[in-house]
Amino acid sequence: MAHHHFVPETYHTAIGAHDPVLSVASGDTISTTTVDAGGSDATGKPITPGGNPQTGPFYLEGAEPGDTLAVTFDKLAPNRKIGYTSGVVAANVLDFGYRPEFDDDRNRLDWEIDFENNTATPVGFDDLPVGRLRLPLKPMVGCFGVAPPRGQAISTATSDTHGGNMDYREFVQGVTVFLPVFVEGGLFHVGDGHAVQGDGEIVGTGIEISFDVTFTLRLLKGKTIQWPRAINETHAMAVGNARPLDQATQHATTELIRFLQDDFGLDARSVHVLMGQAVEYDVGNVYDPAYTMVGKMPLEILESIGATRQ
Amino acid sequence: MAHHHFVPETYHTAIGAHDPVLSVASGDTISTTTVDAGGSDATGKPITPGGNPQTGPFYLEGAEPGDTLAVTFDKLAPNRKIGYTSGVVAANVLDFGYRPEFDDDRNRLDWEIDFENNTATPVGFDDLPVGRLRLPLKPMVGCFGVAPPRGQAISTATSDTHGGNMDYREFVQGVTVFLPVFVEGGLFHVGDGHAVQGDGEIVGTGIEISFDVTFTLRLLKGKTIQWPRAINETHAMAVGNARPLDQATQHATTELIRFLQDDFGLDARSVHVLMGQAVEYDVGNVYDPAYTMVGKMPLEILESIGATRQ
Amino acid sequence: MAHHHFVPETYHTAIGAHDPVLSVASGDTISTTTVDAGGSDATGKPITPGGNPQTGPFYLEGAEPGDTLAVTFDKLAPNRKIGYTSGVVAANVLDFGYRPEFDDDRNRLDWEIDFENNTATPVGFDDLPVGRLRLPLKPMVGCFGVAPPRGQAISTATSDTHGGNMDYREFVQGVTVFLPVFVEGGLFHVGDGHAVQGDGEIVGTGIEISFDVTFTLRLLKGKTIQWPRAINETHAMAVGNARPLDQATQHATTELIRFLQDDFGLDARSVHVLMGQAVEYDVGNVYDPAYTMVGKMPLEILESIGATRQ
Amino acid sequence: MAHHHFVPETYHTAIGAHDPVLSVASGDTISTTTVDAGGSDATGKPITPGGNPQTGPFYLEGAEPGDTLAVTFDKLAPNRKIGYTSGVVAANVLDFGYRPEFDDDRNRLDWEIDFENNTATPVGFDDLPVGRLRLPLKPMVGCFGVAPPRGQAISTATSDTHGGNMDYREFVQGVTVFLPVFVEGGLFHVGDGHAVQGDGEIVGTGIEISFDVTFTLRLLKGKTIQWPRAINETHAMAVGNARPLDQATQHATTELIRFLQDDFGLDARSVHVLMGQAVEYDVGNVYDPAYTMVGKMPLEILESIGATRQ
Repeated sequence: MAHHHFVPETYHTAIGAHDPVLSVASGDTISTTTVDAGGSDATGKPITPGGNPQTGPFYLEGAEPGDTLAVTFDKLAPNRKIGYTSGVVAANVLDFGYRPEFDDDRNRLDWEIDFENNTATPVGFDDLPVGRLRLPLKPMVGCFGVAPPRGQAISTATSDTHGGNMDYREFVQGVTVFLPVFVEGGLFHVGDGHAVQGDGEIVGTGIEISFDVTFTLRLLKGKTIQWPRAINETHAMAVGNARPLDQATQHATTELIRFLQDDFGLDARSVHVLMGQAVEYDVGNVYDPAYTMVGKMPLEILESIGATRQ
Repeated sequence: MAHHHFVPETYHTAIGAHDPVLSVASGDTISTTTVDAGGSDATGKPITPGGNPQTGPFYLEGAEPGDTLAVTFDKLAPNRKIGYTSGVVAANVLDFGYRPEFDDDRNRLDWEIDFENNTATPVGFDDLPVGRLRLPLKPMVGCFGVAPPRGQAISTATSDTHGGNMDYREFVQGVTVFLPVFVEGGLFHVGDGHAVQGDGEIVGTGIEISFDVTFTLRLLKGKTIQWPRAINETHAMAVGNARPLDQATQHATTELIRFLQDDFGLDARSVHVLMGQAVEYDVGNVYDPAYTMVGKMPLEILESIGATRQ
Repeated sequence: MAHHHFVPETYHTAIGAHDPVLSVASGDTISTTTVDAGGSDATGKPITPGGNPQTGPFYLEGAEPGDTLAVTFDKLAPNRKIGYTSGVVAANVLDFGYRPEFDDDRNRLDWEIDFENNTATPVGFDDLPVGRLRLPLKPMVGCFGVAPPRGQAISTATSDTHGGNMDYREFVQGVTVFLPVFVEGGLFHVGDGHAVQGDGEIVGTGIEISFDVTFTLRLLKGKTIQWPRAINETHAMAVGNARPLDQATQHATTELIRFLQDDFGLDARSVHVLMGQAVEYDVGNVYDPAYTMVGKMPLEILESIGATRQ
Repeated sequence: MAHHHFVPETYHTAIGAHDPVLSVASGDTISTTTVDAGGSDATGKPITPGGNPQTGPFYLEGAEPGDTLAVTFDKLAPNRKIGYTSGVVAANVLDFGYRPEFDDDRNRLDWEIDFENNTATPVGFDDLPVGRLRLPLKPMVGCFGVAPPRGQAISTATSDTHGGNMDYREFVQGVTVFLPVFVEGGLFHVGDGHAVQGDGEIVGTGIEISFDVTFTLRLLKGKTIQWPRAINETHAMAVGNARPLDQATQHATTELIRFLQDDFGLDARSVHVLMGQAVEYDVGNVYDPAYTMVGKMPLEILESIGATRQ
């Protein structure tokens, strides 16, 4: 199990079958950096065009279409003191015709990260209540994925079966995400770190910031999945990406059923009865072209009926 | 503050301007019962046609269009040993063309309530893992509301600005829900108790059961709201009911903005900046004609910036 | 077959089981009037609150739940010289964040009807190109229906299985519309005449005007349908009312399949193959809470394969 | 104005910045062929993997991001006797839970083209009414477009601002379609010919067949558009591609407003008033990941108010 230290020189704003920057074996760990959504690095300097630029892609040796790539985020750490957000809730999550009651169009607000207290504060609001905000950090990666099927390259502004810009606030340090492999090597991309983010990314940004990231890639040979799945200490999860949110919910629910049947040794009947009274949903991105819904099942409940991941 | 004990004799499967069964003053408490979604009472006997029959309506003295009715659920308690659910995840939350991998069409499964251990177990699954399930109870009311505007009477199968069949699993004992008053007296209805329910009510039912309920009605004179709002020990909430879920999200988000501006003394700018990085969403019903989304803000965060409910 | 002349004195802005104003036998014809969407009569005088006030309801003798009520619009004629529209395309059919490039907020524009030339012209636009418009009249009824199921009364701002505010521009003189009967007598309501209207009613109005209407009601005893159907000289049609438009399309498509199987003697296989290459869709209202989609099949094609209405 | 005769050797199932097969000047005409959606050529032989394989891309000299590429379809002609369709209406346009009333799962039906009478007939249905069908041909191209923005390559199963799989039955011989240029040369792709198709492509196919196609490309230098526009003998059109259909409607409506303001010399106020009472909508594809809606305005009406294309 090698531990690679990779310094990126190129970035991509579409996730596709780009030339890999590094080839790794299953179980290898990679430490690298990501620029912020606008393309600025740890010094705050813009070094590549904005739009969730991705570090990578990383080639996972042996991965072929029909396999699954598992990524465990070992470390997700903002690496500078200033992040930014926009400051207005987006029109697509507001009633038709609603207008915010302020004119100021500061589309980019700075936030200062207090690493000692592990909080973030919006800068320049001393005169307003929100200036007193000390929001606990919860670093997450907004956008990551593998090369999509059919020779596609898909914008990092959106998401689909390959992952992409899901902006799910539980994609934090410690989570393992499973992604369907569509091309040889899988071609893992990662970027768009957020120091913290509300559900839905409803202003169109989390607290956008550059990251130090460490992650481990594993190959699940011959394992085929349809949509991203994930597991953390408390839940088994399945992700659907689509518009409307209804359809994202359909994908997430169906994939969670498959996840519980495939990996937890449960029969279909048990899964349906269980889901009805115990499923949980979390809302990922509801700002981008595709919205994200996450279906979840508590591991504690699964374990209580003897269903453990196989 | 009177405490009324009311024994229902009639039920409604549409929420509208029906003759009130009881008139109460602001601050009065009412103890009564609800039948289950299928119309059966505490003895399990069907006594009224099914479809979320509602107890009520209760007339709140002094309530006029443009006011707000606040209901606090003081007690929500299943009052019999057997509840029921359906057993198949509904087609509208599954991928188009998906078919469950079992033929058995048991659309009504019994669940046994263990009041000592506060759990529910599906009956007749001794041979399957789900038969081992002991799901902790979390009693909630699926459907309640006030008479809607424009002389409408709206089916208890759906929801709208007046409340209705929202099936939100945080509408439990202790929560206070605010409803816009559209007719004189408000005309509060309540029913459809669930011993426990998964997010979304994705099999079309929670564990449907009859309830003993106690609630207190209060009048907020001259207070006008657009959509249901709620408050519990941890969150301020706003509810949107519509399809697609995108639009429910729009209503919930917009109403939560108004809630924070109106009731927590926050300026619009602060609310937008705060919502972006701290909003939470919960999914209510995604089975009925109208879906339900709930926007939430942690009270702890509000308090930390000096915003308390006024 | 009696011909009734009815002068309305009351109007309803929800379609429900109101007291009937007249009882008629199957085959009877009724001549009456409708006020405009704002509640003004043929003299332009406001006589009832606005919101698509309905004339009726008319009781069709013998109609019971599970039957079908057929209405043929024999005459639909604006009965005054001035109609009105709003003048801005609605936010819900425009890109999120789009703002019209004019400030003037004339939400009510007058249109003058030229009965000699059968056209309509917006008033007060002499200085703009649209002032030269002479739009051919195509009088239609925006809102009509029968009392809905479950004791509901549904706002005339929206639509559902019972009909309602569908705003479909082919509901003109000569068409026969079939509506499912949910209550005894069916209880037919009609109103909301438009001198002409664009697809979708995207400014929220057609040219709103009072009408002289003549229609014939017929009972199809024992005939059960799920959604409104219609037939004119060229097409068999089925209507779906829901949001999003995707779901309205689902209802319309499914009902059209049933229509062709039930009434045109076609087997399911033939209907599916035929629909794939010959179905047509028209867009009804895309402004109201429920949107309207119409699925259509040309009668000429049906006749060419020996399928005639039975 | 050169006339190029091009024989394709490669095909693409994603529309992107592939190496151009031919470079042409503005005004040049190209005659070539397209394989059917399944990858078979004029002899019926499969020569490339299926999924709407595209001929091209064609490089339009001088085209740069921010320009518009205009394509006029001079000739669209099926070039063999047998096409195919699927035979079951797709689940996503049917009510949730609806099941077709036949078991036979013939997902591929042959249709015979009668070039003399200009009709198509499904093969193998002698025993059913649909076997008598002689459907008039209306050849159209289901999928065409230019390389999309951000370095994307987008599957020919879907559509977006760059065009793609719109399956609109008015994209027939004679129409001119305008596409936004995102990369140098525009890179025009074309394929997926249908001998005829119902609205929506609701069985997932038109009558899929290989084509002889002739088209002319023109460069509109410095002309910037957001979504595909088109013009034929009767209408100015704008296309929106998205899910749900509501959002496709938003894009189409907004782009049609811009089209009428930009190209027909109309002020915004005139356009809004006119659209309200005269807009028409057609439904394109409602089967693929992105749905297609087309907003239209009759040229006759535009001309009557002095608005001609500039």
